[in-house]
Amino acid sequence: MSGWTRKDLLGLDELSAEELRIILDTAKAFKGVGERSLKKVPALRGHTMVNFFVEPSTRTRTSFELAAMRLSADVVNISATASSLQKGESLKDTALNLEALRADIIVLRHSSAGASRFLAERLQASIINAGDGAHEHPTQGLLDIFTMIEKRGSLEGAEVAIIGDILFSRVARSNIYALNKLGAKVTLVGPSTLVPKAFEKLGVKVAHRIDDILETADVVNLLRIQHERQRKEYFPGIGEYIKLFGLTKARAERLKPGCLIMHPGPINRGVEIDSDVADGDRSVILEQVTNGLAVRMAVLYLCAGGVGLPS
Amino acid sequence: MSGWTRKDLLGLDELSAEELRIILDTAKAFKGVGERSLKKVPALRGHTMVNFFVEPSTRTRTSFELAAMRLSADVVNISATASSLQKGESLKDTALNLEALRADIIVLRHSSAGASRFLAERLQASIINAGDGAHEHPTQGLLDIFTMIEKRGSLEGAEVAIIGDILFSRVARSNIYALNKLGAKVTLVGPSTLVPKAFEKLGVKVAHRIDDILETADVVNLLRIQHERQRKEYFPGIGEYIKLFGLTKARAERLKPGCLIMHPGPINRGVEIDSDVADGDRSVILEQVTNGLAVRMAVLYLCAGGVGLPS
Amino acid sequence: MSGWTRKDLLGLDELSAEELRIILDTAKAFKGVGERSLKKVPALRGHTMVNFFVEPSTRTRTSFELAAMRLSADVVNISATASSLQKGESLKDTALNLEALRADIIVLRHSSAGASRFLAERLQASIINAGDGAHEHPTQGLLDIFTMIEKRGSLEGAEVAIIGDILFSRVARSNIYALNKLGAKVTLVGPSTLVPKAFEKLGVKVAHRIDDILETADVVNLLRIQHERQRKEYFPGIGEYIKLFGLTKARAERLKPGCLIMHPGPINRGVEIDSDVADGDRSVILEQVTNGLAVRMAVLYLCAGGVGLPS
Repeated sequence: MSGWTRKDLLGLDELSAEELRIILDTAKAFKGVGERSLKKVPALRGHTMVNFFVEPSTRTRTSFELAAMRLSADVVNISATASSLQKGESLKDTALNLEALRADIIVLRHSSAGASRFLAERLQASIINAGDGAHEHPTQGLLDIFTMIEKRGSLEGAEVAIIGDILFSRVARSNIYALNKLGAKVTLVGPSTLVPKAFEKLGVKVAHRIDDILETADVVNLLRIQHERQRKEYFPGIGEYIKLFGLTKARAERLKPGCLIMHPGPINRGVEIDSDVADGDRSVILEQVTNGLAVRMAVLYLCAGGVGLPS
Repeated sequence: MSGWTRKDLLGLDELSAEELRIILDTAKAFKGVGERSLKKVPALRGHTMVNFFVEPSTRTRTSFELAAMRLSADVVNISATASSLQKGESLKDTALNLEALRADIIVLRHSSAGASRFLAERLQASIINAGDGAHEHPTQGLLDIFTMIEKRGSLEGAEVAIIGDILFSRVARSNIYALNKLGAKVTLVGPSTLVPKAFEKLGVKVAHRIDDILETADVVNLLRIQHERQRKEYFPGIGEYIKLFGLTKARAERLKPGCLIMHPGPINRGVEIDSDVADGDRSVILEQVTNGLAVRMAVLYLCAGGVGLPS
Repeated sequence: MSGWTRKDLLGLDELSAEELRIILDTAKAFKGVGERSLKKVPALRGHTMVNFFVEPSTRTRTSFELAAMRLSADVVNISATASSLQKGESLKDTALNLEALRADIIVLRHSSAGASRFLAERLQASIINAGDGAHEHPTQGLLDIFTMIEKRGSLEGAEVAIIGDILFSRVARSNIYALNKLGAKVTLVGPSTLVPKAFEKLGVKVAHRIDDILETADVVNLLRIQHERQRKEYFPGIGEYIKLFGLTKARAERLKPGCLIMHPGPINRGVEIDSDVADGDRSVILEQVTNGLAVRMAVLYLCAGGVGLPS
């Protein structure tokens, strides 16, 4: 695909609008690979992708694994608890070893912001950031905007509300960077502890009441509340959160008819979103999952120098 | 294969004798794939099978994984402890995600009876029950009867004794359903707490003394005693169990010359069966394992719509 | 490759110099498979390799997994904690089951010396020892000597020092056996508790001061200090060990200009070796990792009867 020159995908902040469009166009070409009519393509035959997950994530790991398989790549899974990181080896040494084993692509999930950049600067292998601390989760951001564009045609002028714990969310950051570049108008919604005014510097609006966006949003993207991880000094408590920010049936009825309801999953039914709303007509939550495959195939294909787009 | 219309294999209770025969005939065609002369076939090339094991089982997982590989399918393993079920996601939501990822086949091991049916009714993917609580373990039942028929030619009128903890055994249930349909005469043997008279309603005989079947059985199928799981209110204790129901050398000598000795594994040497008996001429325990591959290839092939039987 | 007749690789002690040369020559032919110009070869297409690791080792497991993939073999991973060994099944029964599942190759890591021989004598499958207790780790030994020969041309008369915990090291033993057969002169270096004089019976020299080898060694092979495993009655303590045997910058400067610095990894920077020395010109630690792939491809190919060497 003309115009793509990067070996890594570290974040959406550093990509140009043109680069975002190349990924999205490539993803469009790959969408449908895995369906009965075209189960797989030979684009990365013989390439090796290592899923290196120092934080657990079955969903993202599985999505990358399936994406690689559909490109005919070979996949090796390494999880932190099983890895020699346990023996005190540094991330750098582990990565140098993976490169010495001729891994073509390393998909890295890590709890530290910047971990994937650290590897990208030191290795020849393609590094794909699958989430680094509270920094970025670029393939999640890409699948979100792929889904929005697929449903709406364009993001130019679209009102996108992102609701929840923005402060600690890599998903929110990747969304904000990409949405800004593609012309959307972003509003971040949540309690002031989790959505401080300082976010306005990113070129977005900040709202502390969900009522401020219900009637105007073209897209609402609900972030997962991670009960177990929420820091008490920031989080109002689960009952209070639902009362103030949960997308209840009543609130969903106030959304515009064509408003897209999105969530990166796994959803907490009855917390961020009512069960009926999650399963309703405007919810595209499962389509996001399917689009994640196409987007990840595109990213692997572009960064690792795959050959032959599906026609 | 003409006559097969199901996308799922949930249990043997619901299959007709004709459907059982289709699976067994298909398994016969696949038997030997994996040997040196025919390492694999392209029947499910590009299909994706997810091994989704919410209860651990290396043996069954490995057997399905190898069966899928020999059909040229791609395999992803998801175990419960690693999965997002940990984060409180429901089985249904996890399964909807697997379907959104375009998994063609989901092999499910789960502690709840009915878990695989629950998924089968909600997903387009093929659901293969790899054991659901104390309900059914249909591929184990199939490999047991495949082995019996391979050795004997037919099950019509064969005397089959199933010995052990019947009450909590999904293996026993799948065996009973299939054996009944194929004309075998089944006797369940064990202490009255584990083999209540109520089982007679299934059309089988119940015996509380192993002596009742030793001289007449054509097949003895010994269930695994799971020390760690045995409920004290039902189980007589390990020493007492061996004394009353263990297939000792002395007892094995009283079996008919051609009697098949079977066990789903892993065996407890010296508990259900003496070590010499397990390794003896009449034991077909390892052949059961080999036949499990053929049966699982057949089930995957039929349910997922594979193309091209080995000739 | 003419001359190879073994189905198993259990250790280097039992191999002839000719057999070692066959493996090394075959590894040379496979070196580079996995690079961009030749991602994989069909030598073991359809063969099944089981990585059966009863002791954890991500590095060795991954290396074998990638080697098998580059030979187009299918790989199944079984780790002890997940396996039915947990349910009390014996190693022998588990292995018989793997053979009944038609595994062509079983790569075994086990805490007991002799575990792989025990399987090799009972199974038709190829057994590859990936480390058995303190006995042998033959593919590590092979990749070490492959690297030495690649860098030096020959081992005849080469002075090789192995430094560290020799007593409990399977890596040391495999190195000693192979180096002796190929004409190298081996000196073992470490505290007398870890390098008793009795090792001299193996046809090597023993030294208790690193100064004895610094100026004369052609190769120094540093063993990993396993803090967590070191037995207090043998080990002088970490600070004392560094002082006496650590390859500091100052000591490295006394090595001959062309001296190779090796380590099986993962390295403890600042313990066995200074960080700068590990990353320096004479260190071939990462090349060892790459060569491990070639050596393992060769071993799998030879033992499992692969077809077609890369030309």
